[in-house]
Amino acid sequence: MAKTAPKKKNPVKGKKPIKSVKSSKYVYFFGSGKAEGLGTMKDLLGGKGAGLAEMTKLKVPVPAGFTITTVACNEFFENKMKHPAGMWEQVLTAMKGVEKSMGMKFGDPVNPLLVSVRSGAKYSMPGMMDTVLNLGITPTTLGGIIKKTNNERFAYDAYRRFITMFGSIVMGIDRQKFEHALERMKSERRITQDTDLDAADLKKLAGEFEAIYEEATLSKFPVDPYQQLKLAINAVFGSWFGERAKKYRKLNGIPDNLGTACNIQSMVFGNTGENSGTGVGFTRDPSTGERKFFAECLINAQGEDVVAGIRTPMHIAELKKTMPKAYSELMVIQQKLEKHYKDMLDIEFTVQEGKLYMLQSRVGKRTAAAALKIAVDMVKERMIDKKTALLRIDPMQLDQLLHPMIDTKASVKVLCKGLPASPGAAVGKVVFTAEVAEKAAANNEKVILVRTETSPEDIGGMHAAQGILTARGGMTSHAAVVGRGMGKCCVVGCGAIDIHEKEKYLIINGNVTVNEGDYLTLNGTTGDVILGEAPLVKPQMNNDFKIIMKWADETRKLGVRSNADTPKDAAVSMEFGADGIGLVRTEHMFFDAGRIKAVREMILSDTKAEREKALAKILPMQKNDFIGIFVEMKGLPVTIRLLDPPLHEFLPHTEAELRELAADMQVPVERLIAKNKLLQESNPMLGHRGCRLGITYPEIYEMQVRAIMEAACELTLKKIKCVPEIMIPLISDINEYKIMDALTVRVAEEVKARYKAKAEYTVGTMIELPRACIISEQIAPIADFYSFGTNDLTQTAYGLSRDDAGRFLPRYIEDGILAADPFMSLDQEGVGFLMKLAAEKGRAVKKKLKLGICGEHGGDPASVEFCHRIGLDYVSCSPYRIPIARLAAAHAALKKEGREISRSTV
Amino acid sequence: MAKTAPKKKNPVKGKKPIKSVKSSKYVYFFGSGKAEGLGTMKDLLGGKGAGLAEMTKLKVPVPAGFTITTVACNEFFENKMKHPAGMWEQVLTAMKGVEKSMGMKFGDPVNPLLVSVRSGAKYSMPGMMDTVLNLGITPTTLGGIIKKTNNERFAYDAYRRFITMFGSIVMGIDRQKFEHALERMKSERRITQDTDLDAADLKKLAGEFEAIYEEATLSKFPVDPYQQLKLAINAVFGSWFGERAKKYRKLNGIPDNLGTACNIQSMVFGNTGENSGTGVGFTRDPSTGERKFFAECLINAQGEDVVAGIRTPMHIAELKKTMPKAYSELMVIQQKLEKHYKDMLDIEFTVQEGKLYMLQSRVGKRTAAAALKIAVDMVKERMIDKKTALLRIDPMQLDQLLHPMIDTKASVKVLCKGLPASPGAAVGKVVFTAEVAEKAAANNEKVILVRTETSPEDIGGMHAAQGILTARGGMTSHAAVVGRGMGKCCVVGCGAIDIHEKEKYLIINGNVTVNEGDYLTLNGTTGDVILGEAPLVKPQMNNDFKIIMKWADETRKLGVRSNADTPKDAAVSMEFGADGIGLVRTEHMFFDAGRIKAVREMILSDTKAEREKALAKILPMQKNDFIGIFVEMKGLPVTIRLLDPPLHEFLPHTEAELRELAADMQVPVERLIAKNKLLQESNPMLGHRGCRLGITYPEIYEMQVRAIMEAACELTLKKIKCVPEIMIPLISDINEYKIMDALTVRVAEEVKARYKAKAEYTVGTMIELPRACIISEQIAPIADFYSFGTNDLTQTAYGLSRDDAGRFLPRYIEDGILAADPFMSLDQEGVGFLMKLAAEKGRAVKKKLKLGICGEHGGDPASVEFCHRIGLDYVSCSPYRIPIARLAAAHAALKKEGREISRSTV
Repeated sequence: MAKTAPKKKNPVKGKKPIKSVKSSKYVYFFGSGKAEGLGTMKDLLGGKGAGLAEMTKLKVPVPAGFTITTVACNEFFENKMKHPAGMWEQVLTAMKGVEKSMGMKFGDPVNPLLVSVRSGAKYSMPGMMDTVLNLGITPTTLGGIIKKTNNERFAYDAYRRFITMFGSIVMGIDRQKFEHALERMKSERRITQDTDLDAADLKKLAGEFEAIYEEATLSKFPVDPYQQLKLAINAVFGSWFGERAKKYRKLNGIPDNLGTACNIQSMVFGNTGENSGTGVGFTRDPSTGERKFFAECLINAQGEDVVAGIRTPMHIAELKKTMPKAYSELMVIQQKLEKHYKDMLDIEFTVQEGKLYMLQSRVGKRTAAAALKIAVDMVKERMIDKKTALLRIDPMQLDQLLHPMIDTKASVKVLCKGLPASPGAAVGKVVFTAEVAEKAAANNEKVILVRTETSPEDIGGMHAAQGILTARGGMTSHAAVVGRGMGKCCVVGCGAIDIHEKEKYLIINGNVTVNEGDYLTLNGTTGDVILGEAPLVKPQMNNDFKIIMKWADETRKLGVRSNADTPKDAAVSMEFGADGIGLVRTEHMFFDAGRIKAVREMILSDTKAEREKALAKILPMQKNDFIGIFVEMKGLPVTIRLLDPPLHEFLPHTEAELRELAADMQVPVERLIAKNKLLQESNPMLGHRGCRLGITYPEIYEMQVRAIMEAACELTLKKIKCVPEIMIPLISDINEYKIMDALTVRVAEEVKARYKAKAEYTVGTMIELPRACIISEQIAPIADFYSFGTNDLTQTAYGLSRDDAGRFLPRYIEDGILAADPFMSLDQEGVGFLMKLAAEKGRAVKKKLKLGICGEHGGDPASVEFCHRIGLDYVSCSPYRIPIARLAAAHAALKKEGREISRSTV
Repeated sequence: MAKTAPKKKNPVKGKKPIKSVKSSKYVYFFGSGKAEGLGTMKDLLGGKGAGLAEMTKLKVPVPAGFTITTVACNEFFENKMKHPAGMWEQVLTAMKGVEKSMGMKFGDPVNPLLVSVRSGAKYSMPGMMDTVLNLGITPTTLGGIIKKTNNERFAYDAYRRFITMFGSIVMGIDRQKFEHALERMKSERRITQDTDLDAADLKKLAGEFEAIYEEATLSKFPVDPYQQLKLAINAVFGSWFGERAKKYRKLNGIPDNLGTACNIQSMVFGNTGENSGTGVGFTRDPSTGERKFFAECLINAQGEDVVAGIRTPMHIAELKKTMPKAYSELMVIQQKLEKHYKDMLDIEFTVQEGKLYMLQSRVGKRTAAAALKIAVDMVKERMIDKKTALLRIDPMQLDQLLHPMIDTKASVKVLCKGLPASPGAAVGKVVFTAEVAEKAAANNEKVILVRTETSPEDIGGMHAAQGILTARGGMTSHAAVVGRGMGKCCVVGCGAIDIHEKEKYLIINGNVTVNEGDYLTLNGTTGDVILGEAPLVKPQMNNDFKIIMKWADETRKLGVRSNADTPKDAAVSMEFGADGIGLVRTEHMFFDAGRIKAVREMILSDTKAEREKALAKILPMQKNDFIGIFVEMKGLPVTIRLLDPPLHEFLPHTEAELRELAADMQVPVERLIAKNKLLQESNPMLGHRGCRLGITYPEIYEMQVRAIMEAACELTLKKIKCVPEIMIPLISDINEYKIMDALTVRVAEEVKARYKAKAEYTVGTMIELPRACIISEQIAPIADFYSFGTNDLTQTAYGLSRDDAGRFLPRYIEDGILAADPFMSLDQEGVGFLMKLAAEKGRAVKKKLKLGICGEHGGDPASVEFCHRIGLDYVSCSPYRIPIARLAAAHAALKKEGREISRSTV
């Protein structure tokens, strides 16, 4: 077993790439109404290639071309960047077909065919990979083009563009060099638009570009068009592993092993004169979803001009005016395509000397609002069924509709980026302490609370602020969790800001100073931190939203509950359509200004009698909270977790604060300092918390159970239905559960007897430690329900503190060591294994064991799908995530039916 | 599922108690050479009952009696303290048999039978449960006894003893009340010995005792002997759940559900005159194991006088002198019994008017040295085979032999001498109560517990102390027996010391005063009591030890390695017979005074270049450590773990220390404070440590791999064999392992190429997180070995920080919530499940995957057995635990063969 040589070069690799089994067909032709490929062959031909084949088959006018498969791409990488055997021969054959179809010849001095070489992966990765246009121009063919078009300006313009693209993309020359030469030329000629350059200018520029090319590559610009083609194909393949592409795939969860296809297609030109043009469009409005052709065009321009935004395109009406025939043909074709694809499409077209060509059609990206409207409309139009409609909407996208957002039309100055912890947008004046935030809010001022990191004492200020910005902490830090729970815009872990709390200013990126009182805008959906007041648009849950939610509820099998700690949260949950509350964190009630004093008294007590005295003060307050929540929930189940965090979390941390508290409590400060020290822990996450507190200080849990049951009994006597589910946290051993269950039942029965009320209740546990999963078959016979606490389960399964992970986890994600932050999206392989184990062991002994999840993952669509798959009864998430979870749950049910979730809405 | 009533009363209960299936036989008779029971029926009859039955069958003279079964005891507890149906009738029947056998009658006014009522559980629990002697004395029978024995003094002595025992044990009267009356009487009569009281005194005393009884119980002393018997049986059963008994069982791992049997046996008296006596003995020396009858006796005394240490017993030679016939009969019987049981026995006997009765025989407790000698000798004597010999020794007991002894070269001041009751040496501060001892131990203070004599209430304190010193009692007194059982240094019967417990000092020989808190040293091997702290040296491992270890090595399948961080540790490991090193914690080298500065420089560096500069200083030091270790280990494998703890552990923590360091490093203190703050973690255990450091700062791991491989290459070139196994800690994801493995292999191969040396090495990982266990099938194909880091695996599986558990874990153990501290003995159910999972998944893909354990559990016999069972290749433990682990590994192998481990050596 001893090692003698390195075993591998690249330690982090995906699964095996897709391979052709026996086929050695690498090239698929399309043109003249015939295509070798099909619209369904996206895996092999990529989205663009499959679309071109499909359009060709539909007799839509498409410039002839061919697609080199993703298999060829993958083999190219396996082959140390060499073409697979036979590929090039197939390319040559296909080229003959293209020449025939177009009536032109590649490299011909008289009637030269030019082609585009474009990447096209299974999933659209806009702008991420490379494209070379006008390929085939050589000194020989250039003359032919001039003659044929009788347009020297056009020919040289095409040539200089080709040199730029080929030089930068294929040969890796800094594109700036070409840009500078162009700028110099324009400046010499005292013009600003490229279009104002005349033929002579462009000819001169082409010469300069050739020189730049020669200087950079130490070789002449290739004069053999097939040589050009070969290099361009290699470059397109190579761009699959370009930095931008890799990053995009990581962000969008696209596997590395798909590979890209390469499309070689005859060039058509929208810039050969005033009867030419180019454009892009959507079959419906991608922003609102309205059913009208939404397109823009440029006359006498190439497609890249539209995409690159170099010239501002005109409304499609312009085309109608200048080229009515092409326009009406386009209108017919776009309708035909939408009917064919049964979805809103994004199309590209070019008119060359009055003749319309379709260059691309694919499912169009759209805003959440548009996605809803299109889905609902298409069901009305009987194009699709309800299930398809549901699958057309990305649950995460709904987030846009649930929070105020920055007006997309506004131009804003993004100063820096943090983690997008809680979505929506917020505008306000910067403040640095919770106290100031609360005061400002009392004066109706809108503020952004900026903290290094937040702690439970900041709750009041967080509530008061419009948004929260922290310099430290991850997606599950205090600020993030609380922010999401409140539905409050929150950006965390923004390392670029340097806070000078005492001096009341912060510095961004070491150069921008923002003082207290200055305005900031936060975008919690993207993590952007923006200077000044950006204009916001209000959220709207319109009728389409409601219809989709109704369909989702009809479809889903999973319950969706909310994590809500107060009557107010409960009310919000009901608005968002919760099926109950999956997690009431009773400790959040403890921080309330009106009761923290009694809580601290309880903690600092030395005897059980003293503790019970302090607890007696808290009991009526807790009881009222529970009554409030039960009333709001109108008889839906409410899972209440007994006290979970270590007691020291409730104490002040600085000596000054302790002194204040001591004076307040009329005890010597030394006692408080000593007690505080005694309570400190090395690893509080693994410390004296959860049911361990219940065992050490049973009087605390007794008080809480009493408060819950008194609330339940009082309501029951008033004939108001309520269903408390009492949850014991942090169970690691069956005996802990037995003792806590016995305590709960004993106190509950005492209360019921005292009230003579038949209040119902159940007792269960949070499954949040690996050992609890392992001994699930011991717990299930006694417990009425489990709720998976996947935050802590993730921390313990990984041995990873979410409070500390910020130091290395971002790098792990960045480098692809972990595919996703396991605190955001459930680690199905590890944590999921434990959940499945617990569920299976539990259900084996108690078939009807109720199972839920109340970690942050309850609002993550992929996690929701996993929960559905392993048979949970419900997920619970922060109130503002409920619609997302409802739709995700519907997707999960449909996926189990075998429906594929549409990627196009991502 | 809603609850309506309490489900259970007692949430923490053991497994179901042993139940008779259909049998309703609760009573087993023995007497006149016949017995209903057998020596093997310990479960049912307890050790004592089974022994009495067996002895009776062997025709050894045993006073007739009967045993009430453990089943009856368990049913008694289940029945709310009522006898099971039919039991009492069986008692009455058996009593008839006893009367017949002894020719006497229970309650008879002329020839009254008296009986003893004693507990007797499956496992011996010396002094832990209650005994009532002389039962059957009533005003009626008393006259008969006087007439029959013609010894009024004896009769009243027996009566007053009976009232004391019955009153205190059965009726719960404070024993002190009787003691005070006795003391008063002696003081009035100006005598010191009980034996100096005459018949009239004792008659008067009996009257006083009756009055005490009446006053305390408000009822007359029972005059019906059967009423006495019934109450006494109930008291014996009840003592099973007495506090002392529960505590003893917890300390010794004896389950609560075994129950105790109750033995009713005819009384014989050793105190009827000078031709009577009583004694206890061992068939071999329980301290050294020497093959000679080792016994003590008291003439004209009852057995309790010996056991309680009230009178200091005489050598057995005394018996030979006074009662030669009884003596020679005893010699024959003890030999016969030892041959029969094939083990060293602990026997009790009484001579009543010249006639010998055997009262008890059981396997005798012994010191580790004796256990070894007896085991080795008995193999030589062909009494037992080697495997039996191995099973006779409790691995944990070897600890005694591995404890330090007083350096013979040191000159020490021996103040006085007591009896050498339990060998070894102990140094500590004097304390006078068990309570203080326990508190001191909780603070990690070493103490010597000094008592006049110990009683079962002192168990906790004896456990906590380094050593025990008593003023009274012999080699078989409570302190001596318990001390040997615990393997704890113990000196007893040291008459030279005069203890003033309340005033907290003792006087030795009337002139040396030793106060609480002063240091004493005990030599349990010689009985020396020494002033101050004597220097201790390592023990010599004698020939018996070596023979047993050799046999263990022949038997065991598991390798035993050590956790050793330095060449010195490595040398000790070799002495103790390690098969290699299972864990070198490289960070321990970092703390060395000579290098901590460079380490801190490295940590405080802001750039990789700075870090590499500091690391370059550490490299040669680490290399030399590794060379030292490799040389000591003589080609045995050495597993080296790369840096594991979070970096802040290496930094000073107070501002003053930081200032000093800053001055030393010539950097502004602010920089160090800032960096220190930056490195602080909320939960360091779950923080930036292990391979996470290797990924963030690859240069650290590169340096360490370089140091290991340079050491290996240099030795290889000198033809010195070494086998480094490089271990990556804290893997939670396969990509972490892939990256770290690639780094290790790359650097290792670079070093080998540079040295042109064919040094071998392997790369593996520590499996210490639940997620690593779950994804084991991904890691195993790449890793050469796993070493289970069960400390961290326990922390994460339980969600329990070792550093913080002190606040509630002791209570968990105390209350039986957890059966054992999971950091001391492996939690086989939870953590073991994960280990088994990882082992099975790993071996499924790599059959020869090397598996070990390097957590603290590697030296715990129960954990070692588990490791054997799940197929590990080796365990690794601290050097001093190696012999324990070697023997435990042999036991594990024998147990798998179906051999039962003997409990008698516990």
